Amino acid sequence: MTRLASLVLLAIFLAAGIVPAASERGQSPPSLPTYTDDGKLVFPANYREWIYLTSGLDMSYSPNGMAGHSIFDNVFVNPEAYREFTRTGTWPDKTMLVLETRVAATNVSINKSGHFQTGELMGREVHVKDEARFPGNWAFFGFDDKDTAKMVPHEAACYSCHEKHGAVDTTFVQFYPTLIEIARGKATLSTGYLTDEKTLSSSPKTSKPSSNR
Amino acid sequence: MTRLASLVLLAIFLAAGIVPAASERGQSPPSLPTYTDDGKLVFPANYREWIYLTSGLDMSYSPNGMAGHSIFDNVFVNPEAYREFTRTGTWPDKTMLVLETRVAATNVSINKSGHFQTGELMGREVHVKDEARFPGNWAFFGFDDKDTAKMVPHEAACYSCHEKHGAVDTTFVQFYPTLIEIARGKATLSTGYLTDEKTLSSSPKTSKPSSNR
Repeated sequence: MTRLASLVLLAIFLAAGIVPAASERGQSPPSLPTYTDDGKLVFPANYREWIYLTSGLDMSYSPNGMAGHSIFDNVFVNPEAYREFTRTGTWPDKTMLVLETRVAATNVSINKSGHFQTGELMGREVHVKDEARFPGNWAFFGFDDKDTAKMVPHEAACYSCHEKHGAVDTTFVQFYPTLIEIARGKATLSTGYLTDEKTLSSSPKTSKPSSNR
Repeated sequence: MTRLASLVLLAIFLAAGIVPAASERGQSPPSLPTYTDDGKLVFPANYREWIYLTSGLDMSYSPNGMAGHSIFDNVFVNPEAYREFTRTGTWPDKTMLVLETRVAATNVSINKSGHFQTGELMGREVHVKDEARFPGNWAFFGFDDKDTAKMVPHEAACYSCHEKHGAVDTTFVQFYPTLIEIARGKATLSTGYLTDEKTLSSSPKTSKPSSNR
């Protein structure tokens, strides 16, 4: 076979789709927000295969913290948005951040102190950037155990708090340890956050081991 | 341009690498363990883009826990191994689990209680399954801030503890909330773990919010 014929054959194979599709080689499908006809967001079922950003334990806006169970929160973002953030320091359109909360446990199996995560989900929320769709570009959705959810109304306090204090584009990048320095380097930190840095605690207080053993 | 000429042109572009490579379209390269000529493991630099399994705070084998800082641990696994686990309930050859530990902080920005993760890494360890290479199939490597590490000798206590108490194939799947029930369903839980379930605490004790505010 001549070189030209080989090239033509390769081109024909490619055109015919004989070369495996990206998804067959292990790539996930694009992670775009999907809505029902009545405007509910469809929960992104495969979010645990997205990019992990951070976890917290019993984080609260109040000095008195939370009552009852100890709770972990885990944050994930769709891979396309993550890659764009590492390149630009901010979120592209169609970014989806998922917050899941899980009951913490202790003293099981070989674990004798500290806290670990259990299979008991407490809740799941999604923060979506969809510029053509939402006022202020972003919207929150709380899912509980349902597959679709209505948008949290824009009057809710979460919007104004995120807009005022979010380090980047209304999101709490100040708690995403691998992204905050990227944003600082790309000069995408919000005015509100930079003001907070001056007026609130400017350096993290290292927390001590909890007494909950 | 004739159809044949178009195909030839496409083939030439492909051969010349002008069509984006898979990695440029967002697909990650395969995540296989790589070793130096003298047998050190090369740290998988992109592990934060792998699949997240769980986090803990101040987890310890000792009831007296840890001294000093509060520490988060995060666990990641290479995507190929994760997919195989969800299908079979156990780890394939070439599985790589990465444990990173991070200093916890509190009371920064809008956070007034609880613990969040900082950019300060305390350590990074890798647990690799490589059947042709290691006695018992698995090996541990501790990296600190280096890019390569020697294998932790098989006599170290971590091996015998993982072999005795790991829920699946010498790994602590009992602390991976989305995987333990898969393993139970596929009947891949180890004899050692099933014995522990009977003799140690058999149900998680829900932990209460820590007093470290």
